[in-house]
Amino acid sequence: MSNPVLVDVTRGNLVESRHRGMVIVVDGDGKTVFSLGDTEAGVFPRSACKAMQALPLVESGAADAYGLSQKALALACASHSGEPEHVAMAASMLAAAGRDASVLECGAHWSFEQKPLIEQARTLAQPTALHNNCSGKHSGFICAACHTGTDTKGYVGYDHPVQQEIRGVMEALTGAALAHDNCGVDGCSIPTYAVPLNKLAHGFAKMATGTGLEPVRAGASRRLIEACMAEPFYVAGTGRACTRLMKTAPGRIFAKTGAEGVFCAAIPEKGLAIALKCEDGATRAAEAMVAATLARFFVDEPELHAALMAQANHTMRNWNGIAVGDVRVTDAFNR
Amino acid sequence: MSNPVLVDVTRGNLVESRHRGMVIVVDGDGKTVFSLGDTEAGVFPRSACKAMQALPLVESGAADAYGLSQKALALACASHSGEPEHVAMAASMLAAAGRDASVLECGAHWSFEQKPLIEQARTLAQPTALHNNCSGKHSGFICAACHTGTDTKGYVGYDHPVQQEIRGVMEALTGAALAHDNCGVDGCSIPTYAVPLNKLAHGFAKMATGTGLEPVRAGASRRLIEACMAEPFYVAGTGRACTRLMKTAPGRIFAKTGAEGVFCAAIPEKGLAIALKCEDGATRAAEAMVAATLARFFVDEPELHAALMAQANHTMRNWNGIAVGDVRVTDAFNR
Repeated sequence: MSNPVLVDVTRGNLVESRHRGMVIVVDGDGKTVFSLGDTEAGVFPRSACKAMQALPLVESGAADAYGLSQKALALACASHSGEPEHVAMAASMLAAAGRDASVLECGAHWSFEQKPLIEQARTLAQPTALHNNCSGKHSGFICAACHTGTDTKGYVGYDHPVQQEIRGVMEALTGAALAHDNCGVDGCSIPTYAVPLNKLAHGFAKMATGTGLEPVRAGASRRLIEACMAEPFYVAGTGRACTRLMKTAPGRIFAKTGAEGVFCAAIPEKGLAIALKCEDGATRAAEAMVAATLARFFVDEPELHAALMAQANHTMRNWNGIAVGDVRVTDAFNR
Repeated sequence: MSNPVLVDVTRGNLVESRHRGMVIVVDGDGKTVFSLGDTEAGVFPRSACKAMQALPLVESGAADAYGLSQKALALACASHSGEPEHVAMAASMLAAAGRDASVLECGAHWSFEQKPLIEQARTLAQPTALHNNCSGKHSGFICAACHTGTDTKGYVGYDHPVQQEIRGVMEALTGAALAHDNCGVDGCSIPTYAVPLNKLAHGFAKMATGTGLEPVRAGASRRLIEACMAEPFYVAGTGRACTRLMKTAPGRIFAKTGAEGVFCAAIPEKGLAIALKCEDGATRAAEAMVAATLARFFVDEPELHAALMAQANHTMRNWNGIAVGDVRVTDAFNR
């Protein structure tokens, strides 16, 4: 099955590039509300499932024991831009567990975003693991491990208790079997598992609604999603899509991107969750797709609908500020 | 017609993302030697056609009058990384014409490459037009205009003599009509025209072989292509694909990328030229495609073939240096 073209990138009057993809929206029971493309295909959720990976941090009691704020919980679910607030918050999470950056096994990289990178280049000789976009997630892993008396060494490994527990959580939420045969290594060195897109969406719908979850998991899920919605800057950063989408409807939309064109989102008040992937891995297309998909469910709120569609369809400008073309979703979204 | 998948990006044992595209190889007479996908589709060549846009610089006699070196001619065909040598060379081209950066109308941007960007951030308050990846091309425009006594003001405009002349050159080379209806504005503000991919390839095959060209144009074409092959660092920069490909077979391969997944290349000794586009605009895929296409024509030179295929198929590593997957061309290239 060939996935449909979901996003066009235009220049002048012509389409210059095309992005295909698959999108699914489900409710807490896993019922499909909207779909495009092959939504049973296995997809590596990458960073889009960080809120799932953060559940042990809350369920174990570590978040309470270490007094983690909503900002810290949002950062545990984040792919942040390495801005000073992000770096400081990750360090404070580690400090709460009596640890420091030396225990992090995520590797170091400069910010992916131009403005924070320029700031980092001017103030740092080299970035540290705290600047890694996943440092909040990893600091959350360290907190969970320390609270339960688990040795953190090698915590990124497939067989380490931290990853075993995450695997169990994600299997329960998605209903998909996770093992070596659908496992890859993520950018930050932890396992990432290919999951059918519809099952990934169902996992987030369960988190957003609590449907079928034990009270502890339902509570932890709600708490993490609320933390992200309350502190969207800590989930991504200045000008980033996740931050922007969640600021568009404060407390009403959860959204989290993943590498290679993945996006997961939820609208808790409507009991719905979204999972999507751009076939070619393009971030710009995944961002347009998630905004257009979210907009479908706010047609009765014209201002919010327009604000979301302005993130789905937008004009590109060149170095002189001249409008050269558009990123825009295709008619597939009007079905 | 749906373009075939030409590049897979894997993670673990699975394909994570897929890139579709179209590729064509033609000889000087325009005869198709190899093709994949819809090669009659209109494609904006973007920066991939800079060597065509530089022809007036040489044909007008400006290059000789101003004593431009091979490095300068390579920079006139370049999308450079804004490394110090690039910036200095663009400034010296302008100085040769008695001008300076204030006449450039390309806009300013920080380097797209991480290492030069970090260096720029540490040494500059803001980038200038000389740092724009197109500054060499624009400096070439200025030289051509000054030599012919043309006012440079507004030289990026559709109706300015500089752009009119380029339009004429490109129409003659490609055999495609260029006008407002297939015109867009490029990143550096000059017009860019959508051309059928096969005609774009034919234009480069004419440049590489001289077939059907007047002696002045044939000579200017050869001189520009030779300058790029002799000074590949000035066509792109440290670690960049164009530079790497041309260094793989010094003096034997010409290669130039364009934004949105375009690549043009030529093998002058075999009388062939290549034009290709990744449907979704991805640079990583266009780079793999051009390397694999070039490799087809060097099967009788196993070392060179292997060096090119190593650029088509390569392993991706994460922040800890762990191999996480591959970028690799699909079986479509084995036809």
